[in-house]
Amino acid sequence: MSEADLKDEEQAGEEESARAEAAESESLDEDNRLKPEFVRSVKEALDQEDADRVYDLVEPLHPADIADLFELVDERERLTLARAIRDLMGVEVIAELNDWVRELLVEALPADVIADIAEQLDTDDAVAMLEDLDEEDQQAVLAEMEPEDRAAIESALAYPEESAGRLMSRDFVAVHESMTVGDLIDFLREHRELPTEFWEVFIVDPMHRPIGTCSLSWILRTPRHIPLYDVMARDQTLIPAAMDQEEVALRFQKYALISAAVVDASGRLIGQITVDDIVHIIQEEAGEDALLLSGAGDGDINEPILLTVRARLTWLVVNLATAMLAASVVGLFQGAIARFALLAVLMPIVSGMGGNAGTQTLAVAVRAIATNQLTESNTVRMILRELRIAVANGTALGLLIGVGTWLIFGNPLLGAVIASAMVINNLIAGLMGILVPVTLDKFNVDPAVSSAVFVTTATDTMGFFSFLGLAVLTGLA
Amino acid sequence: MSEADLKDEEQAGEEESARAEAAESESLDEDNRLKPEFVRSVKEALDQEDADRVYDLVEPLHPADIADLFELVDERERLTLARAIRDLMGVEVIAELNDWVRELLVEALPADVIADIAEQLDTDDAVAMLEDLDEEDQQAVLAEMEPEDRAAIESALAYPEESAGRLMSRDFVAVHESMTVGDLIDFLREHRELPTEFWEVFIVDPMHRPIGTCSLSWILRTPRHIPLYDVMARDQTLIPAAMDQEEVALRFQKYALISAAVVDASGRLIGQITVDDIVHIIQEEAGEDALLLSGAGDGDINEPILLTVRARLTWLVVNLATAMLAASVVGLFQGAIARFALLAVLMPIVSGMGGNAGTQTLAVAVRAIATNQLTESNTVRMILRELRIAVANGTALGLLIGVGTWLIFGNPLLGAVIASAMVINNLIAGLMGILVPVTLDKFNVDPAVSSAVFVTTATDTMGFFSFLGLAVLTGLA
Repeated sequence: MSEADLKDEEQAGEEESARAEAAESESLDEDNRLKPEFVRSVKEALDQEDADRVYDLVEPLHPADIADLFELVDERERLTLARAIRDLMGVEVIAELNDWVRELLVEALPADVIADIAEQLDTDDAVAMLEDLDEEDQQAVLAEMEPEDRAAIESALAYPEESAGRLMSRDFVAVHESMTVGDLIDFLREHRELPTEFWEVFIVDPMHRPIGTCSLSWILRTPRHIPLYDVMARDQTLIPAAMDQEEVALRFQKYALISAAVVDASGRLIGQITVDDIVHIIQEEAGEDALLLSGAGDGDINEPILLTVRARLTWLVVNLATAMLAASVVGLFQGAIARFALLAVLMPIVSGMGGNAGTQTLAVAVRAIATNQLTESNTVRMILRELRIAVANGTALGLLIGVGTWLIFGNPLLGAVIASAMVINNLIAGLMGILVPVTLDKFNVDPAVSSAVFVTTATDTMGFFSFLGLAVLTGLA
Repeated sequence: MSEADLKDEEQAGEEESARAEAAESESLDEDNRLKPEFVRSVKEALDQEDADRVYDLVEPLHPADIADLFELVDERERLTLARAIRDLMGVEVIAELNDWVRELLVEALPADVIADIAEQLDTDDAVAMLEDLDEEDQQAVLAEMEPEDRAAIESALAYPEESAGRLMSRDFVAVHESMTVGDLIDFLREHRELPTEFWEVFIVDPMHRPIGTCSLSWILRTPRHIPLYDVMARDQTLIPAAMDQEEVALRFQKYALISAAVVDASGRLIGQITVDDIVHIIQEEAGEDALLLSGAGDGDINEPILLTVRARLTWLVVNLATAMLAASVVGLFQGAIARFALLAVLMPIVSGMGGNAGTQTLAVAVRAIATNQLTESNTVRMILRELRIAVANGTALGLLIGVGTWLIFGNPLLGAVIASAMVINNLIAGLMGILVPVTLDKFNVDPAVSSAVFVTTATDTMGFFSFLGLAVLTGLA
């Protein structure tokens, strides 16, 4: 390369970076989201079938922003957009797409085009793209691929969904323990086919079992003649290929890993997982608690609406059954209510407050279980802690509502009854809020998925029963 | 170092790694959590004040597991444990400790000991340790520190809480653009004071403004004579020091970053943030939705119980007010209920199911807003989507409960009334479930914190009002 060329390259580089910055400020708001005005212009251009204008608008965007754009336009516009910016739809965009959007696009493309894209993607991204296709389409795409890439994807698909085997990349650098730092640098410079981005080099024994890792920073800082054997860290976290991705994410987090070796059942190094692939999983797994607790299922706003309706309705029907159970408790006291209708006015306060308190405890317990903070070792202590909180809150709320009721309705007995019911229901709430998730977890049921039904059933029925029951017992009605 | 020395080191290394593995299988369960039996032995040894046995038990653990152990023993045992394993309490353990546990330990230690620990920690970890101390203690610790370390921490503390400036590390590698790859490698080998772990080298101009970054893998694979200017990536994500950590986490995730340069207001490079510090934040920010939506506050199980009670009680009292509002709606219909007590039996079903449906929509909307998936560009589409879901679910549930009520109580009008109320309340739930968080977000209020109160108030009051109101209107009671 001549000096003049270099200069041109420099200038081109500067221009490109300047243009990218200008484009960013035009298209991104202060929170780094695509501006509504920008999305509107794209949608207008799509409406007018002005593919050139769409291309000009989208071209300066970062691949991650192009991926976001697909989510922000309407569903029926997504295919048109993909067609208009065909040669911007590089692997970075495909890898960043929301699962549902990707599925939509992939299903619309012919098998050979998908195969072309899949071959350019890292194995883990290619697997993510292909795993949701139905068996037949998947086979059609695989048939179009180069044997080597096909083998890699097929072997990944052989691992269970959401396992380390699906997540790992087969591109990694592993060298023999006998190398020196200099050997390694030469090896890296000579072998152009190695992955371009990696953060650690794995050192393996003759059986290809990992025995240590070297951070690139240590390699760069060590004289060439030193054997890798002397700079490598022996203490490394090995990920079995069958490990669930949530577990993988917890290890990355716990040990602050940047990358980790994935090993097969015989301990041989077969892949690596890097933290950038884990970040999405941590986000998803941590964020799904709120969705699961509410019974919103997947909760992704791009999910096809029929799937969403089905997921939410299933949950609502289960809750309907429990609501009817609670109603039947009220039914036992119909006579009392007919005599003293004020009971019907006050009873939702007792059940509702119990529900709120139960949900609080439940949210804390589910989170603590998911992050391995709540284990068998501290379960008893946590139960006692929740009971103490329940006593404190139940007493405070009971006094508040009891005195309030007394003053408003001039009926001290009614005040005492609602206060007692409130204390009882808060205790039920605290106890069930922690016992239900802990028990489900013990039986390997995800506590986020099904705890809420049990807890609210308990607080509803016991709220009505304690309040109405006490009212009858004390001769109020 | 002689060959014999090397051999000894190797053997020592092998022994250490073998021992660590054995210890792991003894102390960790299949989910990588400390075994209850193990924790029990530690607690027994603590009870018996057998410091040596505690030390022997804990010594083989990974620092992250030692940090976990502190969470698993009782609060009153934590200081004893810290004393028993004093020289295992290295920076890795301190950095991994839960915030509340660290605060407890730090408050019990004299200022000069904390200063010693803080000097060994990375700036970001030292800041995390000191920021929760009260002003006076903080000053006492800072006074004990070396001027250089003190200055770094003071400048970090000058940034707002939870900002990039607090999070960043001041240890990074930045070199001038004129260097070649060979110059850089020599520079790294010569300067032993540089950080030991880094993933990227920042290239700066003479004003110390970042103009590009080099992954270490590119440096390792490039011949020595090539200028850095030609291998560096110009397109980089710069983090302003004042940026909120949640925003930083979203950028890391969106652009799959391993590390990023932090710049001050004039664009000068002042620090770096690495992904391992971000992983915790992503986890926390994503996980806190469930806690905030339920009003459980911080939700950490190590939070002092009085703070927990206060946070939860505040929320419950707010909810008590809204429950009383809903009760007052029921109060309007006391006469109708006295005439026809069955209304009181069925009304909690309508309000409860509306509450469940509203919570589902709310959880989805809050999540989508937090991940920048729901922006102004697609708000209208999302509202329409939720309305369609509400119509579908409301109709299905209305039919189910309406027909059920008709069959059970032999009253078709009662069935029609509860079915209609169910449809109405599901629409309210869907609409409020998305409008409330979107509106709060527009006014820069965190929708996870306060949406739930508004949504359940709406579904409770409207559930009662639509059911009881329709009952009166149709002449049922």
